[in-house]
Amino acid sequence: MKLAIVQFTPLLGLPEATIEIVKPLMQKCHGADLILLPELANSGYHFESKQQAWDSSEIAGEGIFSCFLKEVAEEQNCTIISGLNEREGDKLYNTAIMVDKNGLIGKYRKLHLFMNEPKFFEPGNLGLPLFDFRGEKIGILICFDWMFPELWRTMALRGASLILHPSNLVLPYAQQVIPSYFITNRIFIATANRTGCERDITFSGRSIISNPKGEYLCMLSPNADEVVIQEIDLSESHNKMITPLNHAFEDRRLDVFPDLGVLK
Amino acid sequence: MKLAIVQFTPLLGLPEATIEIVKPLMQKCHGADLILLPELANSGYHFESKQQAWDSSEIAGEGIFSCFLKEVAEEQNCTIISGLNEREGDKLYNTAIMVDKNGLIGKYRKLHLFMNEPKFFEPGNLGLPLFDFRGEKIGILICFDWMFPELWRTMALRGASLILHPSNLVLPYAQQVIPSYFITNRIFIATANRTGCERDITFSGRSIISNPKGEYLCMLSPNADEVVIQEIDLSESHNKMITPLNHAFEDRRLDVFPDLGVLK
Repeated sequence: MKLAIVQFTPLLGLPEATIEIVKPLMQKCHGADLILLPELANSGYHFESKQQAWDSSEIAGEGIFSCFLKEVAEEQNCTIISGLNEREGDKLYNTAIMVDKNGLIGKYRKLHLFMNEPKFFEPGNLGLPLFDFRGEKIGILICFDWMFPELWRTMALRGASLILHPSNLVLPYAQQVIPSYFITNRIFIATANRTGCERDITFSGRSIISNPKGEYLCMLSPNADEVVIQEIDLSESHNKMITPLNHAFEDRRLDVFPDLGVLK
Repeated sequence: MKLAIVQFTPLLGLPEATIEIVKPLMQKCHGADLILLPELANSGYHFESKQQAWDSSEIAGEGIFSCFLKEVAEEQNCTIISGLNEREGDKLYNTAIMVDKNGLIGKYRKLHLFMNEPKFFEPGNLGLPLFDFRGEKIGILICFDWMFPELWRTMALRGASLILHPSNLVLPYAQQVIPSYFITNRIFIATANRTGCERDITFSGRSIISNPKGEYLCMLSPNADEVVIQEIDLSESHNKMITPLNHAFEDRRLDVFPDLGVLK
């Protein structure tokens, strides 16, 4: 399959104008089976008020950004995963939606909110879903979720071949840590990060696709809007042999960490 | 406290000659409170036969290498953690011993054996002990144990301030992955790797000490025998705040990974 990342700069609080920016970049992804966009791709990140967050939110699968993604999915015969400032009732969620030509087919809501995000968003309440994609399982984490190794491990143990990671990363730590997740879990990872500045924040780009062997297949620029289309074979993630004699999961000494979930 | 690493090349199957090599390096560590040596520091790694492994093993706390370490601990008023080819009854273990002026005070046995190691060693049967050092908790992992994030996480959750990691690393992956362990767990990590070649294997040096802020405090050369003494404040590991509003452990959404230990 062909996986594409669109790294770009959404316009804060301006979904319509943002669509005009991202549309030509997505057109460059013709031929991709799956296209990944950054976190909060419809709205930008660094809201000045709850009102600004609210005004640029939408109902998943119904708002203008969702409808735009459905059109692209139909035109380009692909599936799209995109960060979305999602409204449901009177609440907002930092969500990733999965869209194909039929519209909304899946949703993940960010579990771990960073810094001031709880001023705008509710914590995710949809657990850690895995989505079927051509017989393979795909998981989603959003930005700061990267900090919690249990999430990556749990999805890998449940059979995820690929974890998609729409992000608005600022600090350099995630890029230092993510290699541990693809190496120890032997899965594909794609981080679609955004670029640009919002007030005092500069986003760090460097979107990546990595494979289960521990290799980066690509890394985008720290500050340019760009796309990449990468051919990957998700079945490579099924091989969990680290050496001919060592298995990444079955070698684990479950007897020594029975209480992992518990904070002592 | 002052933590020292001795990075050196043990002589395969020759404990006495190895002592003559490591002795002057340890003397350079005067003033250190804790000295860390690599995995299997008494025997080397790449045995040609079980007999060779057996002949260079010793009873922990009683053999010549243990006695040598006790003498150094007494002379230099310090605690030493060293990899040891350990014999107990008719079995061998890939062990790390903790020694002070009183002799053996602690022991960890490698849980995850790499490649052909089961031909020589039994898997560790002492769990994941934490050792008291001046009121702080210290954990030990040996070399390939690095591959299993649950081990690091479990010890950090149980209160470890510092994890010592005596190693005989060959491949480059551990050095890519270890940053995730000090960043996500906010602990100190010291990896003492060895140098030199044994038959077809070249060990990769680059021993490190890192802090809970996600910084390398030092990284040794890929191939030279050398020592480093690093001042560290273990209490820095008590602060698990990633931002003023995010806690590395308490933010974890335990509701979404109840089955982490289980292989699905």
